[in-house]
Amino acid sequence: MLIVMHHNASNEQIKAVSEAIGAMGLQAQPIPGSERTAIGVLGNQGYVDDTALRDLPGVREVIHVSKPYKLVSRDFHPQTTVVNVAGVMFGDQHLPVIIAGPCSVESEQQILKAADLVKAAGAQILRGGAFKPRTGPHSFQGLGVEGLKLLRQAGQRVDLPVITEVMRIEQLDAVCQYADVLQIGARNMQNFDLLKEVGKTKHPVLLKRGMSATIEEFLSAAEYILAEGNPNVILCERGIRTFERTTRNTLDLSVVPLIREMSHLPIVVDPSHATGRRSLVAPMAKAAYVVGAHGIMVEVHPDPDKALCDGAQSLTGEGFAQLVIELRQLQALMAGGQV
Amino acid sequence: MLIVMHHNASNEQIKAVSEAIGAMGLQAQPIPGSERTAIGVLGNQGYVDDTALRDLPGVREVIHVSKPYKLVSRDFHPQTTVVNVAGVMFGDQHLPVIIAGPCSVESEQQILKAADLVKAAGAQILRGGAFKPRTGPHSFQGLGVEGLKLLRQAGQRVDLPVITEVMRIEQLDAVCQYADVLQIGARNMQNFDLLKEVGKTKHPVLLKRGMSATIEEFLSAAEYILAEGNPNVILCERGIRTFERTTRNTLDLSVVPLIREMSHLPIVVDPSHATGRRSLVAPMAKAAYVVGAHGIMVEVHPDPDKALCDGAQSLTGEGFAQLVIELRQLQALMAGGQV
Amino acid sequence: MLIVMHHNASNEQIKAVSEAIGAMGLQAQPIPGSERTAIGVLGNQGYVDDTALRDLPGVREVIHVSKPYKLVSRDFHPQTTVVNVAGVMFGDQHLPVIIAGPCSVESEQQILKAADLVKAAGAQILRGGAFKPRTGPHSFQGLGVEGLKLLRQAGQRVDLPVITEVMRIEQLDAVCQYADVLQIGARNMQNFDLLKEVGKTKHPVLLKRGMSATIEEFLSAAEYILAEGNPNVILCERGIRTFERTTRNTLDLSVVPLIREMSHLPIVVDPSHATGRRSLVAPMAKAAYVVGAHGIMVEVHPDPDKALCDGAQSLTGEGFAQLVIELRQLQALMAGGQV
Amino acid sequence: MLIVMHHNASNEQIKAVSEAIGAMGLQAQPIPGSERTAIGVLGNQGYVDDTALRDLPGVREVIHVSKPYKLVSRDFHPQTTVVNVAGVMFGDQHLPVIIAGPCSVESEQQILKAADLVKAAGAQILRGGAFKPRTGPHSFQGLGVEGLKLLRQAGQRVDLPVITEVMRIEQLDAVCQYADVLQIGARNMQNFDLLKEVGKTKHPVLLKRGMSATIEEFLSAAEYILAEGNPNVILCERGIRTFERTTRNTLDLSVVPLIREMSHLPIVVDPSHATGRRSLVAPMAKAAYVVGAHGIMVEVHPDPDKALCDGAQSLTGEGFAQLVIELRQLQALMAGGQV
Repeated sequence: MLIVMHHNASNEQIKAVSEAIGAMGLQAQPIPGSERTAIGVLGNQGYVDDTALRDLPGVREVIHVSKPYKLVSRDFHPQTTVVNVAGVMFGDQHLPVIIAGPCSVESEQQILKAADLVKAAGAQILRGGAFKPRTGPHSFQGLGVEGLKLLRQAGQRVDLPVITEVMRIEQLDAVCQYADVLQIGARNMQNFDLLKEVGKTKHPVLLKRGMSATIEEFLSAAEYILAEGNPNVILCERGIRTFERTTRNTLDLSVVPLIREMSHLPIVVDPSHATGRRSLVAPMAKAAYVVGAHGIMVEVHPDPDKALCDGAQSLTGEGFAQLVIELRQLQALMAGGQV
Repeated sequence: MLIVMHHNASNEQIKAVSEAIGAMGLQAQPIPGSERTAIGVLGNQGYVDDTALRDLPGVREVIHVSKPYKLVSRDFHPQTTVVNVAGVMFGDQHLPVIIAGPCSVESEQQILKAADLVKAAGAQILRGGAFKPRTGPHSFQGLGVEGLKLLRQAGQRVDLPVITEVMRIEQLDAVCQYADVLQIGARNMQNFDLLKEVGKTKHPVLLKRGMSATIEEFLSAAEYILAEGNPNVILCERGIRTFERTTRNTLDLSVVPLIREMSHLPIVVDPSHATGRRSLVAPMAKAAYVVGAHGIMVEVHPDPDKALCDGAQSLTGEGFAQLVIELRQLQALMAGGQV
Repeated sequence: MLIVMHHNASNEQIKAVSEAIGAMGLQAQPIPGSERTAIGVLGNQGYVDDTALRDLPGVREVIHVSKPYKLVSRDFHPQTTVVNVAGVMFGDQHLPVIIAGPCSVESEQQILKAADLVKAAGAQILRGGAFKPRTGPHSFQGLGVEGLKLLRQAGQRVDLPVITEVMRIEQLDAVCQYADVLQIGARNMQNFDLLKEVGKTKHPVLLKRGMSATIEEFLSAAEYILAEGNPNVILCERGIRTFERTTRNTLDLSVVPLIREMSHLPIVVDPSHATGRRSLVAPMAKAAYVVGAHGIMVEVHPDPDKALCDGAQSLTGEGFAQLVIELRQLQALMAGGQV
Repeated sequence: MLIVMHHNASNEQIKAVSEAIGAMGLQAQPIPGSERTAIGVLGNQGYVDDTALRDLPGVREVIHVSKPYKLVSRDFHPQTTVVNVAGVMFGDQHLPVIIAGPCSVESEQQILKAADLVKAAGAQILRGGAFKPRTGPHSFQGLGVEGLKLLRQAGQRVDLPVITEVMRIEQLDAVCQYADVLQIGARNMQNFDLLKEVGKTKHPVLLKRGMSATIEEFLSAAEYILAEGNPNVILCERGIRTFERTTRNTLDLSVVPLIREMSHLPIVVDPSHATGRRSLVAPMAKAAYVVGAHGIMVEVHPDPDKALCDGAQSLTGEGFAQLVIELRQLQALMAGGQV
């Protein structure tokens, strides 16, 4: 931590700040400059709360050097984490994973048909929501535990692991029972109680970035899960909220190579929620591969125009099958070291 | 709802859209224009899901006229709602309410001292967090139920109602038992399960705007609570996330007169979380009064430099007392119809 | 400047960075910590370009302590600047200034009528656009020099100084000839050539914040003008672009007290462009007073519904007269030290 | 255009709005609904100014159906535009174009060496800034006309067309004389006078998206140029400003397929300015190819660590040569219809 003093801070003020640092059990190292003095703080283990310092007289600014996360940082854990989902591997040295399925489990017929479609096309994990967060109270809210069972049944039929969202702690046991991956949605990225409970399981977790979460906040949320003892976290970029509203969100693809530098956790991309438009899903999925994503998650519905949620962003079975073919071409090219 | 067709949409495409509208039990009214045709949709009760329409051939855009909220809308309920918190009234025809107290309940001594301070200065409701959402897992997480009890004890001593945040459904019974107002934090504004459960109580609720929530989403979140039968909702603007990071958030004060036009619910302002800087709290609190807020919520700590959370944005007892004096001057001026 | 090294940076890397700092004529001061080493940079006069450092092996981050502006900083110039516009004073110890008039000068009759209205109501400076930036090419683009002459004529008739926007350098002579204050619009806030030319005059300048400009960029733009020798700069907050689009922009009022801390320049607020809605102009104007603005600029049109631009945000003569009355009440209260 | 009336708007109000529409020479078509009446506006040619309508009593909202641009819209001009830059073609049916070179022309030696490097690696157009917009007044501002001459000299030596930014109208003649493509920077995207003057030439123009410009504003800016008679416009996505500041901007790649749907103009991507970090340039450049960009523009500097501007985001010669190899692999794959 670095305390930047005002241009005209007095020696007494500098001394007082140094003493306050000492009172926190840390060491102060003043760095006099031509324009102002800064005071380095030494001896801390990780992030330091600056409350006792930032309002002291003469202090202009407090600059944090340590980040509020450490377990997820590549700086401290250079080796890449590989998350194993029932034999499907997310991480470096493994091919990108394709997760696909409908936004919601709507009926037995629908999820079985979707499972057939995505399996035939080449998906490796089946997705489907049983508990749905919806912006308005008058929309379809999901089938609940019944949806979980249907999802599992569909997964078993086509021999695919399944992923579904857990929205609250009381659902956790049921979701753990039926799903191979626990999805934490964007709206829950900072539901810290839920993160902690999920961290107490060993279940693989797919953690979506909050729609206005910085990279630092995203990694700090993952830190909550690792701090409880669960290292099996897959990060998921799904678009951020910006002034641009022609697309549902703005897919921040640069976050993929950036997080690969900053963290050892695998990261996947959800182009369906990010764009909200069917025609943009395939190009952005391919772009995700190219920037180094460890997987993608796309919405596929047997009959998108009749979907109970998010139909407009869902691929048809044919569209998805074509996308998988193209992704495999890309993958082969990349595996050959050509891209 | 209005379906805007492409410039060169064929008559068959227009007909197909009209038929799809009919299949939804609604009426289509084509509006031919010089450049393109639009198709009005009649007969709907409230918001219509556009999934079955927006991807039909020839459709360029779907424009929603109805909003996803209705119960909270002033359009349908012109009369202002007044929320009664143990005799303290939020709403038109009532003076703005001052809510004050520390970010967190830290100890018996601290909350009692804070209660004395804010009561003496003129606050009408005591705030204090027992369950705390924190960005990183290594920060102080609140005292839990013990904190609730201390808050209630402090409120009783100084004869003030109390408000505290409820973060998850399992905490709801305890919070209802000890608190007069249930606070839903910004991170939980779209925790729809929690909103529904809170909606099943009759407890007054203070609903904070999510940090990247549009006004429409904010009002839709309140709709969840009203839809379950609880009309006692107080909205709270607490700053939105923007590119500007010198302040913690950007306090969007224009939302106050705007929401007064759009909704019948009372709205208060939290200048402490919005700005994150002590020196900005008093000016923004006064500005909130002037734009018509039904109250403010400010952080006050007996010893901000030793606060376990958010000390840097907390007022001291003296600072708060001075602010109340100035707010009362403003209030008198406004009550006299002079401003 | 502070160079933060990676956790596992080698001593050779630390040494190489120190030498690179030395090669820039500056001194390096390593600050070894428990987790990583940081290297303080001493001896710089102001902002340092970090290009030669930030990509050296082992460097994790470069943190700037000095700001890219100095002349506008209160840190170095504690005394408040007062800008004198033909006897109307902007700055501390002076009452807030009211600037009013139509978005555009449309005709002799319109601007004369507007001048009469705003003068009668109590405005101290008349505004009116002669050169207009418009988002689309098919909109009214302003009367040009003819508009300047009409504005000056109207100002003279009612004995008010006038302000108008200068959009390009070739207009500068004409605008200087006819106007008392040169307005730099939000879109030109980083038109550095224009800033420099304006800086070579002694004319008062009203510099609007760019719609996505940080406070640091805003102050840096003002620095351009001061660096050329013109100290007569009035800053103007006019709303920033955020995800919220119900209002045209989000008026960032906290910037007013914040800039008063950071800079010695006066700052005014434009609630008309910020909100884009007539009903929000008066409350936000009053809020601007309360947070310490040195003035406001509002759009007033004799017949808003027939205005050629921005009519929907313009006050009528009556609305403006009522606002001035209320602002004077507020001002009296504040002058009495009561707020 | 659609006028949405309030729920409780009276018949008189509906009639008054209809009459106001008639007074504008347009036809009103009321669409009564179960909750409210909407009024369609017929007979307009393109975008209609709503000033005279939106504040009439009973009006809740005005919804625009027509866009403020038409010449750039694919809706009206389905055939793709191909822009020819001295034989290098931007547009569908042509391979993506690689533009490369230093941020600024710094010296004869530097630009000649850069030209050699980028030519050898496979670039098709040489870039280099002669006039530089810089955030602070104390930074390197470019070599001006001398820089233009050096850039042209370097281009001729390696037989590449050149592109450089024009910042103001007075520079236009000189830039037209020496450059093959006129670049309009992000800060000037809404410098409408400049757009118009550029529109009067026949020179190819590369128009960068403003850092907070919506897609609609971006296309409207291009409309300015086309409206003056110059159809040779290449759009350029270069990142938008969001709350995320770890990268310089957020590269909005979904804009590429989206603009290809909405407009017939070619679009290229600048990953260097968008990310501001060297390590992100190559992945994002490849992603730009995959989403369908008609070209990329990257910064390459013979010695990035000594660059006078933006060195930290510049590729070295080796890095750039490697990127071109990988892009050509991608291109071959895409040309083969495999991606």
